[in-house]
Amino acid sequence: MSLYNKRGVSAQKEEVHSAVKNLGKGLYKNSFCKIYPDYISQSADHVNIMHSDGAGTKSILAYLYWKETNDISVWEGIAKDAIVMNLDDLICCGVYDNILFSSTIDRNKTLIPGEVLSAIINGSQKFFDDLKSFGINIHYMGGETADVGDVVRTIAVNGTMTARWPKEKIITNEKIKAGNVIVGLAGFGQTIYENDYNSGIGSNGLTSARHDVLNKYYFDHFKESFDNNLNPEVVYSGMHSLGEMIEVYPGKSVSAGKLLLSPTRTFAPYIKEVLEKHFYKINGIIHCSGGGQTKVLKYLPENLKIIKDNLFNAPPIFKIIQQESAASLKEMFEVFNMGSRMEIYCDNKDANMFIETAAIYGIEAQVIGRVEPSDKIELVINYNGELIHYN
Amino acid sequence: MSLYNKRGVSAQKEEVHSAVKNLGKGLYKNSFCKIYPDYISQSADHVNIMHSDGAGTKSILAYLYWKETNDISVWEGIAKDAIVMNLDDLICCGVYDNILFSSTIDRNKTLIPGEVLSAIINGSQKFFDDLKSFGINIHYMGGETADVGDVVRTIAVNGTMTARWPKEKIITNEKIKAGNVIVGLAGFGQTIYENDYNSGIGSNGLTSARHDVLNKYYFDHFKESFDNNLNPEVVYSGMHSLGEMIEVYPGKSVSAGKLLLSPTRTFAPYIKEVLEKHFYKINGIIHCSGGGQTKVLKYLPENLKIIKDNLFNAPPIFKIIQQESAASLKEMFEVFNMGSRMEIYCDNKDANMFIETAAIYGIEAQVIGRVEPSDKIELVINYNGELIHYN
Repeated sequence: MSLYNKRGVSAQKEEVHSAVKNLGKGLYKNSFCKIYPDYISQSADHVNIMHSDGAGTKSILAYLYWKETNDISVWEGIAKDAIVMNLDDLICCGVYDNILFSSTIDRNKTLIPGEVLSAIINGSQKFFDDLKSFGINIHYMGGETADVGDVVRTIAVNGTMTARWPKEKIITNEKIKAGNVIVGLAGFGQTIYENDYNSGIGSNGLTSARHDVLNKYYFDHFKESFDNNLNPEVVYSGMHSLGEMIEVYPGKSVSAGKLLLSPTRTFAPYIKEVLEKHFYKINGIIHCSGGGQTKVLKYLPENLKIIKDNLFNAPPIFKIIQQESAASLKEMFEVFNMGSRMEIYCDNKDANMFIETAAIYGIEAQVIGRVEPSDKIELVINYNGELIHYN
Repeated sequence: MSLYNKRGVSAQKEEVHSAVKNLGKGLYKNSFCKIYPDYISQSADHVNIMHSDGAGTKSILAYLYWKETNDISVWEGIAKDAIVMNLDDLICCGVYDNILFSSTIDRNKTLIPGEVLSAIINGSQKFFDDLKSFGINIHYMGGETADVGDVVRTIAVNGTMTARWPKEKIITNEKIKAGNVIVGLAGFGQTIYENDYNSGIGSNGLTSARHDVLNKYYFDHFKESFDNNLNPEVVYSGMHSLGEMIEVYPGKSVSAGKLLLSPTRTFAPYIKEVLEKHFYKINGIIHCSGGGQTKVLKYLPENLKIIKDNLFNAPPIFKIIQQESAASLKEMFEVFNMGSRMEIYCDNKDANMFIETAAIYGIEAQVIGRVEPSDKIELVINYNGELIHYN
């Protein structure tokens, strides 16, 4: 969306990629995270990964929701977002255990009291406790919480994970090849380890989603929730309030606020099982985070054509965002996951096994596409009869 | 300073300590960083540390300086600040090698262009290259750079370090005892590995320092550089401009901007040498970061009285800050390091060796005080004839 740049964000992060171009690339050029030698304990049979990510501007939605409802538990979701944005990147490399976590929270103390910090920090530990029951051990090592109101309008919640992993058990995406199919994992619905309907929004594109969906009430009442130098036209330009109920399927309605704030689903419990039982059947794993459905283009080992012609029907939150923003489908798929948040690349014969195993966890999965030979790296999405081409 | 709270910061971070009170405390209750079992590689003989910290509001000073002078290299100093605020905490635990680093940069893309990101990221790598020549190996593993202008007014630069270390080679502060002396390491002057005079400011108390020293010109011209909801009286309430030259010693003048922006000095090359050669002579190491000269009170193993009666004469930057803020000495020592940024606790007989070794690196050092028996944890500072008591 052209709006995207006007709001000071860039889905493809060209400037960031340019800024880091002189840094090390790691051992495997197509791996989802950078993978390095085992610097920390010098084992030739292991690798190290260190990864940082956060809840981004989703924290602003939590702030608005908390101010309107006094419901402090919404901050637990932000804790989860900051964690899952790291964890679900790590599982794309095959890593799911013995992980170290440190949080970095920058707040404006005059707006964000200690009870919000407690909700985020204790919410993080609670989520780690939940994951432990699936054999996913993440150690909360501490972190930094800084009072920097001159820098941060409300609050920024970030986290970093460090892992050491057997070299023979990592996923590098090098095996993705023509003839593979793509099993898509839905980010929406309700898994056996979620307590409520998940909209599937994840933690990407939230600047757009927030401004596109919410109305001018938030512009008038929450000046601290946006860059006041933005053109007011692009600020909270939608029609909805956080409390407005939206039907997500017949008989189930959820508030717009809860839809936008659905905590990013982790696929770790499921991916752990398939990694342990079917490691050699996995050719690649892609987390459709920033860059949405185009994400895979950065991780292909050779010239290949990715065809996605059986994506999930986008769940309601994405339809609302598209309606409000008048964005093209091409733009929507570049910013949002549109329902399919993770991809497993595998042989056609193994696809049903991956799909059936996902069902055990309450994760909807289906073959969303396939990989074909090509003389360049390209992606074709065929969605509701519209053909969209990226390269 | 009462101003401190009005500006939305708290030197003692009471709310933060309350928020983390349910988290793990690590293996050693007095260690400077939390130290955990070797979760990452399960060696009974090793420990893990993961630590996060950043440049705080010092990034705003860099922003102002860069806008006024176009000198982009000032951002390299911010990179160094974010690194040293982690590294010099780790060396307090005895850790100086095989360290993993990941950066977390949140920026407002409309104000902070890609070239600033490049200066920070490439400056980080350059600093790691410099440290390598001292045998301090820090691996830059990557990081996250997010465009979050609705959260961040200008830019926040944070970093996280992970280390694995032999258990028998860690400093836990458990050995600090009555009879010890305190060798103070100056943060000001010029070491053999610095290219210019260092004011000693470090990266703590910079919200106060910036507002106390700089004048209303910055209030009028850089609204993006402070929380616009603060009482204007406490915003840029000083008399100076960034370009104003200040004499730091006869014949040497430095601009106020450069004094405030002096990159936090690392003591790692020196501490590495004394750890390797005199490990058993070190009873404790304290980094006088947030909390200034009172920092040690949080890390004492038992009821002890710390007496500091021979501190360095505070270098010019702190005198300027005190003049402008009219803060009491008691408040100054609680917020700023006042010249002595690191402390080694040792036997009296070993003090000269620590001081002479520091001189080799161009680090000024002296016995600044001692430890005495007490029935409570307390600190007495005797400075220029004024007696100040903390407990």
